[in-house]
Amino acid sequence: MKDILVNLALEPRHREKLEAAAPGCRFTYAPGKELTPELVQSAQIIIGNPPPAWIAASERLELLQLFSAGADPYIKPGILAHSTALTNATGAYGKAVSEHALAMTLILMKKLHLYRDFQRQHAWRDAGMVTSLSDATVLVVGLGDIGLAYARQVKALGARVIGVKRRSGPCPEGVDELCLTAELDRVLPEADVIFSILPGTADTFHYYTAERFAAMKNSAIFINCGRGSAVSMEVLAQALREGQIAAAGIDVAETEPLPADSPLWELENLLITPHVAGNFHLADILEQVVNISCDNLRAHLSDQPLRNVVDFATGYKK
Amino acid sequence: MKDILVNLALEPRHREKLEAAAPGCRFTYAPGKELTPELVQSAQIIIGNPPPAWIAASERLELLQLFSAGADPYIKPGILAHSTALTNATGAYGKAVSEHALAMTLILMKKLHLYRDFQRQHAWRDAGMVTSLSDATVLVVGLGDIGLAYARQVKALGARVIGVKRRSGPCPEGVDELCLTAELDRVLPEADVIFSILPGTADTFHYYTAERFAAMKNSAIFINCGRGSAVSMEVLAQALREGQIAAAGIDVAETEPLPADSPLWELENLLITPHVAGNFHLADILEQVVNISCDNLRAHLSDQPLRNVVDFATGYKK
Repeated sequence: MKDILVNLALEPRHREKLEAAAPGCRFTYAPGKELTPELVQSAQIIIGNPPPAWIAASERLELLQLFSAGADPYIKPGILAHSTALTNATGAYGKAVSEHALAMTLILMKKLHLYRDFQRQHAWRDAGMVTSLSDATVLVVGLGDIGLAYARQVKALGARVIGVKRRSGPCPEGVDELCLTAELDRVLPEADVIFSILPGTADTFHYYTAERFAAMKNSAIFINCGRGSAVSMEVLAQALREGQIAAAGIDVAETEPLPADSPLWELENLLITPHVAGNFHLADILEQVVNISCDNLRAHLSDQPLRNVVDFATGYKK
Repeated sequence: MKDILVNLALEPRHREKLEAAAPGCRFTYAPGKELTPELVQSAQIIIGNPPPAWIAASERLELLQLFSAGADPYIKPGILAHSTALTNATGAYGKAVSEHALAMTLILMKKLHLYRDFQRQHAWRDAGMVTSLSDATVLVVGLGDIGLAYARQVKALGARVIGVKRRSGPCPEGVDELCLTAELDRVLPEADVIFSILPGTADTFHYYTAERFAAMKNSAIFINCGRGSAVSMEVLAQALREGQIAAAGIDVAETEPLPADSPLWELENLLITPHVAGNFHLADILEQVVNISCDNLRAHLSDQPLRNVVDFATGYKK
């Protein structure tokens, strides 16, 4: 009989599902701002993403099931006790984030962001030549759930896909050529589209350096739906201003919310969305988060292996 | 030895291809504004889209090979002599226009047009829930080259596709359910996305009536990349203002250019592009127009059947 704290806005049918997965446990539902440090400290299992500082290495906490795929704030030293298991919601976001990234890719290829600007000026104005995914080489950096879903989508639309991952292995469906991270600089100059879906870890901090943007095609489109820390905002702005790449789309920023006085807002060839690609904006994300949580409640309560255990060294699913 | 007038901006390699297809003929190249009524009157074969009035039923004109898929201005009485064959460039635009329509579909589903507006206000603001193509029923009205290419794309991304065409026949690849035009009103209420790619003919004039918009889902997205005459601008504006549909994307307008004082420009849930989905904005359109023209030069000069002959009754390829 554990104390389970749920920091998610749920419908009754979701609560029923969770409670059926942990019979006899005491559930406390504290969505959004209803959460308090006291509730966090008294919980044995938390489903949700509480402020990391409130956890304060609570020895009482056995399992933290995040609703996000990214786990970066929770893997830092001092946040979780050694005895706390950390699981993420990898798998819940593949559909939503990959389609958002595909929409960003196509809008930039077809210059629809410029046409939207022209529309605001009441201008029936031509923005010139466009490109096609069916002629494109697309580099997918990060081949987790989201990266693979995006790879399959662009390949189905005719693109040649190069996938980049940390560890060697068989080439997955939807990927034409598999590269290791160490080979990134060899394939960067080939890419018409670079889609980055890296987690926020020490290894991926400012991963896209000025040198890497300089190595990309001038016609390249760069999309980041991973973590904002992967690219310095100054480096990205410079690459766009100097025409080292043609355009970029970012759903994440180094500082979120992006400050109103950031020069990024005014870059015509940059498209910004406010970290909404996932974030429960597609109804079935919540369904899948609840399903993963149920699986892990059952597993934890019966001492079985958990799904989506986070590797503290990498921030990825193990 | 015919007089061939080419009203297209070509590179030397395109000219060589055309001249090799009609050996011994006299070629005159008059791209864009270099064209004159006298040149049109003296030609036996024209490749391009001259102002219809300049043709004035010239008896000398044997073949008019358009660079467009749409033939509507040329099928009106008094434009072409009965002895003139009319061929279009169907097949050259499938890739470009279908991908533009797909981009429009995704931008509207993911609300990227609103995020672009927020960006202009330096606002890190949430536009709320979105939808996914993988859960969508997509109605493709007009199953020519472009409609079929779009159908295959959205199906590859997980959509259920209902295709609507005039004549019965086998269900093409990329289409889950085939309907006749007469059944449109039965399937309209099922559609999450309606993609219209109808030519401009008497039958398709103001095809999407107020009643038809009222029958659509309130959450539906309407895309028109066919001809602007298919929908009255007033009817479309009303459907959007009253929330009969969620959003629309148009690459064509009833009056082009859309006048600067049109109320359409200010509709937040309408995305407007200035008839650029095809229009030689993708490099390989011109290649394909030249290839079709070569085939028809060879066919005409050797009295063989032409490709892409336009049916004057429908405006479609026969």
